[in-house]
Amino acid sequence: MARLRGFEKLTGVDEARSALMGALKPTRIVSVQVPLSAALGRILAENVMAEGDLPPFDRSAVDGYAVRAQDTFEASQFNPKTLRLTQEKGVGPREARQIWTGNPMPPGVDAVVMLEHTRRIGEGIEVWTPLTPGENVSRRGEDVKGGEVALKAVTRLGPHHMALLAALGKTRVDVAKKPLVALLSTGNELVEPGREPEPHQVIDVNRLALASMCLELGAETLDLGIARDDAEEIGAKIREGLGKADGVIVTGGTSVGYADLVPTVVDQMGKPGVIVHGVAMRPGMPTALAIIEGKPIFILPGNPVAAMVGFEVFARPLILKLLGVENEPRPMVKARLTQRVASTLGRRVFLRVKVFEEEGDFFAEPVRVTGSGILTTMTKANGYVIIPENREGVEQGEVVTVHLFDRIGGAGIV
Amino acid sequence: MARLRGFEKLTGVDEARSALMGALKPTRIVSVQVPLSAALGRILAENVMAEGDLPPFDRSAVDGYAVRAQDTFEASQFNPKTLRLTQEKGVGPREARQIWTGNPMPPGVDAVVMLEHTRRIGEGIEVWTPLTPGENVSRRGEDVKGGEVALKAVTRLGPHHMALLAALGKTRVDVAKKPLVALLSTGNELVEPGREPEPHQVIDVNRLALASMCLELGAETLDLGIARDDAEEIGAKIREGLGKADGVIVTGGTSVGYADLVPTVVDQMGKPGVIVHGVAMRPGMPTALAIIEGKPIFILPGNPVAAMVGFEVFARPLILKLLGVENEPRPMVKARLTQRVASTLGRRVFLRVKVFEEEGDFFAEPVRVTGSGILTTMTKANGYVIIPENREGVEQGEVVTVHLFDRIGGAGIV
Repeated sequence: MARLRGFEKLTGVDEARSALMGALKPTRIVSVQVPLSAALGRILAENVMAEGDLPPFDRSAVDGYAVRAQDTFEASQFNPKTLRLTQEKGVGPREARQIWTGNPMPPGVDAVVMLEHTRRIGEGIEVWTPLTPGENVSRRGEDVKGGEVALKAVTRLGPHHMALLAALGKTRVDVAKKPLVALLSTGNELVEPGREPEPHQVIDVNRLALASMCLELGAETLDLGIARDDAEEIGAKIREGLGKADGVIVTGGTSVGYADLVPTVVDQMGKPGVIVHGVAMRPGMPTALAIIEGKPIFILPGNPVAAMVGFEVFARPLILKLLGVENEPRPMVKARLTQRVASTLGRRVFLRVKVFEEEGDFFAEPVRVTGSGILTTMTKANGYVIIPENREGVEQGEVVTVHLFDRIGGAGIV
Repeated sequence: MARLRGFEKLTGVDEARSALMGALKPTRIVSVQVPLSAALGRILAENVMAEGDLPPFDRSAVDGYAVRAQDTFEASQFNPKTLRLTQEKGVGPREARQIWTGNPMPPGVDAVVMLEHTRRIGEGIEVWTPLTPGENVSRRGEDVKGGEVALKAVTRLGPHHMALLAALGKTRVDVAKKPLVALLSTGNELVEPGREPEPHQVIDVNRLALASMCLELGAETLDLGIARDDAEEIGAKIREGLGKADGVIVTGGTSVGYADLVPTVVDQMGKPGVIVHGVAMRPGMPTALAIIEGKPIFILPGNPVAAMVGFEVFARPLILKLLGVENEPRPMVKARLTQRVASTLGRRVFLRVKVFEEEGDFFAEPVRVTGSGILTTMTKANGYVIIPENREGVEQGEVVTVHLFDRIGGAGIV
């Protein structure tokens, strides 16, 4: 077990993540078939092919009149071409038939003149603009050709994808099964939300915060509750989690004298056990990563801000991988730092900032430099800046990349 | 009724939106109380006050030893200060007590030295760094002071807000009631998803696409189904929607000869009726906006791309307003256009683009300039650029603002 007291040797963030990913067996993506109406936000687990052409026939792309392009050559507002209106199925030379967006093109025509480029006169229309053959026509198969892949696997389905899937006639789709993540909080000082804490007790917020992060990604959670700082109780809960879920996240176990309790318990549960303990990051240094029964166990600090950062750095990529997603970065924005922030050489610092826009430029204001235990450092922020290990800080005015976890200019920022 | 045939007079987008918003009564935000565990993604409808201080006592912000700062003055690695370890409740001069992140500060001390700045020697520790009073201590009330507003109303609750609410002891919160939006598709050519379309029939995709857009915003939907191009049937369905929902969205009614059917039906239902018909935008020109019984009715084109753009421009701001949200812009990015795109003076064009990053710079590639009926213009895009009315196009190389509706570099983009 790569264990330490006082964390004299820390593992780098990238090295720690690679160690975990490398020690896990290649992920098998489990898919489930769901009704299309339940697929919003899920990750597509199949390449969706078009069975036939979309559109299945040539159709008008605008509201107007179906005509022969050649009948409009040289038309202009000063020299309009007059065409006779017909209701017949087929349209003859120097004839036009009214047509609406999406309607099939009648036989005999090859273009559509938009309503606004015409004027109705008696039984005919004046056309004010010349058309080229095919103009304002959606050709059969123009959207998707039969046999073509219309949507690739690993797409996270948004409203526009739902529309295309429905148009293709899909009523059920294969999506990645939601990974199940078990959540355990440990610590004698913790009480359940809703209980009035005694002096020196603390309400456990980590299961709710991390469950919310899981839900946002598309994972489900299993609540293992709170365990006392007791090796047997912790071991039993983690085993329950391993038996039911795809991975376990444990927070806490840093009460006086219990700093290594959770990693010690986990390391005795099987091979390879704890593969990283102590990561060169802030917050989140006491993080440990383990694999038991081929499943990942994330042992994160009890401090909620550090736990959320640890989740972001280690659990988030793993959950995405279980969904088949190689990378789903948060929205990023480049912004100018409003003040210098010092950091420690050799540590990757996750600096919470509030990004705001002023006259078209983005600025990032460090919310607070110290105090990683302070939850308002996250609720007053909308993103974080990564200060790399080889820097002793970031300078005032420096352009930094902000990873956004909340909106810019959101109403909720006090 | 501001009605037109051939849309000879179009209303500007901003004017149309203002006309709708101005004619609606000031929105009363309806709130509901939900368990905190069900509040993720909802819009907070109350200012949440802290009842007591958070943290409720001075506590350590790090893992280390609680000490008196004055005992460490002038300490350095070459001149360490030696302190005696104690397990007593109170800590005396030249004494230190082990402490973990989040633990209450024992009486008698005013600072915490981090583990890594110390060395254990027998019954004591060597301290290598001088501390100032208060160093590494989270003061009582430092996160939130009792009586202070910790989170403002209209915050869309993310995981970090959930953590803060739980820490404040909240188990239930007031959130904005989900607006109920009724969705109706009209058109003789439409068939339900799952039905094999006959030649010249079209699968209705609009209700699913718009329902998905509603869900993403936090609204619920009522499915009114498909109505034939029949005034009575359309009227009955819309009346059902008005009776049950906060607003109605109707798409279609643009089959041959039925261009004005839905606006005509709606306009006869009450006052003020249709207030806008024909908007100077592309796609989405045939859009009509109405108010009946004080509720908004959005009459959008049957073309799914135009319907989605019409939703984005008119229904989205209204739904947000019902949630109490004044403005929730989509993520935006500035990008350089890869090719010139022409547009019509006097029309606001919503140009679908695919944003990609190359060597740190963002580029926006127009997915397709024409063919607004083509669904893949949305699934191949990840955002849109607004070409304003006073422009005849946007130039190659021009820096444009892209409103993102999907990820940059997402896997799903074919």
